Amino acid sequence: MRVVVPYGAADPKTRLSPVLDAGERRALAAAMCRDVCEAVQASGGDPEVLATATGRVPVDAPVRRDERSLTAAVNAVLAATEDDVAVVMADLALATPDALGRLFDADGEVVLAPGLGGGTNALVCRHPAFRVDYHGASVRDHRAAAREVGARLRELDSFRLATDVDDPSDLAEVLLHGDGEAREWVADRFDLAVDGGRVGVARTGN
Amino acid sequence: MRVVVPYGAADPKTRLSPVLDAGERRALAAAMCRDVCEAVQASGGDPEVLATATGRVPVDAPVRRDERSLTAAVNAVLAATEDDVAVVMADLALATPDALGRLFDADGEVVLAPGLGGGTNALVCRHPAFRVDYHGASVRDHRAAAREVGARLRELDSFRLATDVDDPSDLAEVLLHGDGEAREWVADRFDLAVDGGRVGVARTGN
Repeated sequence: MRVVVPYGAADPKTRLSPVLDAGERRALAAAMCRDVCEAVQASGGDPEVLATATGRVPVDAPVRRDERSLTAAVNAVLAATEDDVAVVMADLALATPDALGRLFDADGEVVLAPGLGGGTNALVCRHPAFRVDYHGASVRDHRAAAREVGARLRELDSFRLATDVDDPSDLAEVLLHGDGEAREWVADRFDLAVDGGRVGVARTGN
Repeated sequence: MRVVVPYGAADPKTRLSPVLDAGERRALAAAMCRDVCEAVQASGGDPEVLATATGRVPVDAPVRRDERSLTAAVNAVLAATEDDVAVVMADLALATPDALGRLFDADGEVVLAPGLGGGTNALVCRHPAFRVDYHGASVRDHRAAAREVGARLRELDSFRLATDVDDPSDLAEVLLHGDGEAREWVADRFDLAVDGGRVGVARTGN
């Protein structure tokens, strides 16, 4: 199976701007991408980074560049590949080899791992006609797209793959459940902030 | 296995107040509790509602009343039960028989299903000395508590069990992934609101 990890390096993670400056956001995005690639490798896969923006990709894995939109770049891979393809987002800081193994092993011609808020954080495609569209509530659109081409659809129930790191509150999930470089990076700068309801983060004194 | 579903009926889901009035919050909480009990039944379990507040419990399942705190009420059950005990929160509107089956079947003397923001949305206890504490980042505390009593710990990786319905944004998850009474209730009142980033909800015209 070909495992593609899309990575937009130029100005990543803008929704983290309230708590991280541009350099920090680039550093965290790179750390997460390395963690994801390592988890793919540990699950037995060979990750290939799909860089959808200019800029250095500081990851020890083959890099393919396609500076069109995420959707266009992924669809170009799907169209050009006869083998099964997995697409795993680079900001899944909680991804483990186990969770990715469940994804890769799930049967179904299209396997979707939903993200929080309607995204599609990871997928496996084993159907020649299936194409992605990452705008809006993409998991809903991908279900419809799979039905449209007659692909057997399966959804993977994984909290670790559902949790992409987009909003400041996601940094709490990294502290609570991560165990890679990104977790260490966040822990150097933030503590959990517990004050009723869901836990958040607060900058540490450093 | 004894399956306990804690349910605080008096003024539930206060964090949904920005979008739902008190009567609506009670109706949604009751619908979710019925959905959870049905999913437990469909997975082969016999749910028992643990009512931690006064008020009617409009659910077709045995009800045990204990109006102390959630923590005290659950610990009383754990102390009084020699059999294995599962504790499944009543607001897991995405829970399916499959996800609950994975929880009940997971080995480990303590099995934790983390919730978003550090909660513990469901657990299985097969160790006589383990006790809960639902304050703060409870999943972290429950890991420590399991270690302290020497219980073999396992965590269940489930998006469906991680998603409790507490914040308005969770209503979007119900629309996207639910299929029970609660989903229908939310769909009668809200639409998905897609505007970049994670999807939210907006009141419909009704």
